[in-house]
Amino acid sequence: MRIGIDVGGTKIAAGLVSESGRVITRKKVKTEVRKGYPSVRDQIHRLVRALFSEAGNRAGNIERIGIACAGQIDQRTHTILFSPNLNWSNVPLKHDIEAATGIETFVENDVNAGTYGEWKFGFHGESSNVVGIFIGTGIGGGLILNGRLFRGSLGVGGELGHITLNPHGYLCNCGNRGCFEAYCGGSYIVSRVKERLARGYRGKLWDIVEGRVDGLHTGHIEEAYLSGDDLCTEVWREVVEYLGAALQSIANLLNPELIIFSGGVVAGAKRLIDDARLVMERRAMQASIAGLKIERARLGDDATLLGAAFVMDE
Amino acid sequence: MRIGIDVGGTKIAAGLVSESGRVITRKKVKTEVRKGYPSVRDQIHRLVRALFSEAGNRAGNIERIGIACAGQIDQRTHTILFSPNLNWSNVPLKHDIEAATGIETFVENDVNAGTYGEWKFGFHGESSNVVGIFIGTGIGGGLILNGRLFRGSLGVGGELGHITLNPHGYLCNCGNRGCFEAYCGGSYIVSRVKERLARGYRGKLWDIVEGRVDGLHTGHIEEAYLSGDDLCTEVWREVVEYLGAALQSIANLLNPELIIFSGGVVAGAKRLIDDARLVMERRAMQASIAGLKIERARLGDDATLLGAAFVMDE
Repeated sequence: MRIGIDVGGTKIAAGLVSESGRVITRKKVKTEVRKGYPSVRDQIHRLVRALFSEAGNRAGNIERIGIACAGQIDQRTHTILFSPNLNWSNVPLKHDIEAATGIETFVENDVNAGTYGEWKFGFHGESSNVVGIFIGTGIGGGLILNGRLFRGSLGVGGELGHITLNPHGYLCNCGNRGCFEAYCGGSYIVSRVKERLARGYRGKLWDIVEGRVDGLHTGHIEEAYLSGDDLCTEVWREVVEYLGAALQSIANLLNPELIIFSGGVVAGAKRLIDDARLVMERRAMQASIAGLKIERARLGDDATLLGAAFVMDE
Repeated sequence: MRIGIDVGGTKIAAGLVSESGRVITRKKVKTEVRKGYPSVRDQIHRLVRALFSEAGNRAGNIERIGIACAGQIDQRTHTILFSPNLNWSNVPLKHDIEAATGIETFVENDVNAGTYGEWKFGFHGESSNVVGIFIGTGIGGGLILNGRLFRGSLGVGGELGHITLNPHGYLCNCGNRGCFEAYCGGSYIVSRVKERLARGYRGKLWDIVEGRVDGLHTGHIEEAYLSGDDLCTEVWREVVEYLGAALQSIANLLNPELIIFSGGVVAGAKRLIDDARLVMERRAMQASIAGLKIERARLGDDATLLGAAFVMDE
């Protein structure tokens, strides 16, 4: 048995996982981000101990702990270099959890873990070249290349959200201009629309959200676009064009067999992937996309937890 | 011993190569592109026979022939799907050379072969994650990932010249808009400058080429930029910005340890790589470029020939 833990900016999900990839028990707590790293580390430790109790006399069989969290992880030193969601810099999570539990612990980037989990358990390891694209507030990526998780030299590869799609484009939180994330990440799309509403734009979108701008999300924007709202049509077309260009770049560069989409924006928007696929097909070299499958993730939240528990076997 | 062959649009270079990667004998002929595939195939066969004669009684030791050529090669069927330089579609080169020589033959994309050759013999296999960028009239790429040449699912991966850097940008020969190649490929840069000269632009560039527009190349454009020519300053800055954005995208996505530049545009332009590196450093995530080395190719024309001869060992 293993323990898999998904440390997000709002919640920590932990699970006891069988060697065959079944989640036996789940635990969830709200992440105490504001209390800082020591507090979150202790939360993780408490979840591990709770799962130990659940495991009862099988607890001795827990041989590995895998933890997934957002950010860049130096796989040579096992240090989390930077995690914007958790507000961490250079934290030794692996070392601390190992010291507290005595169990071998592995820390992995959350989208890497999620992509690995989906590939291994959602898609049963089919295809050797797989790209995971997570579109939530931001955009993350995970790469399975030649049948293995690809991490790059320092372990920080796969930052798909931060490829440049327009050097003079929108400012990204990473500091660059024109990142894929700055065009297609949920929080960026929503803030562009909110800005226009603040400047007085009205239309079908206004009716759809009933003037409650605070709760606006990308699902509303797609709905308004489908109803012919001018602003949302303009915004949606831009998102689709840039998402399609990102897919084309990935296809031409990596020639994958499978692209797996996940994240809130993808879950909330019905036509986004299909529309972007058409853009990709228009832009990409034909041989690069021959046989390419584009699918939605199948495992939901369990993907990251399962991936965290198994990715150290790589 | 092996035979390595580099089939280009203007010349075919062939060599007898030792198992340690030394080129023992070289042969070169002009490519009879206009006469079509059968004629070029026969040229290749004649070069192989000539190298056999050179090898004398060691000819029996030639166990493998490797051929590099531009274009997309389906590694499952060993067919050259499309080669724009050679004007080939769906040609069975591997099969034909094997039938004519009785020797196992392997066909590889020329930039993949060149990257592999540089990595293996120019850089002695150092680093496990290496990106080769060839900038000539167009732009090609080769990827060494986790210590192996990466080809993607069908074998057509690594088309680095055709990642999108601006969805509404310059038209590329591949049909897409805003490809890296359309911004930074030599023939595209030159044709943009020529167009402005045809529309009447004069300046220091005009003096540098002494009014002989036909022979204009990117070296002239860099020279004119360094002399303060307005047009070339504008063009050069755009090239540097887009090349830097491409480097940033590669670094964030693949986190390589080494990027190797080759090709006529790079050889002819002294400051291009250094200037683009500064743009990359401004745009990329710090962890993604920590320790990244950017180097020029070391082997010249031999890289592709050597790569062709050895890449089948992969």
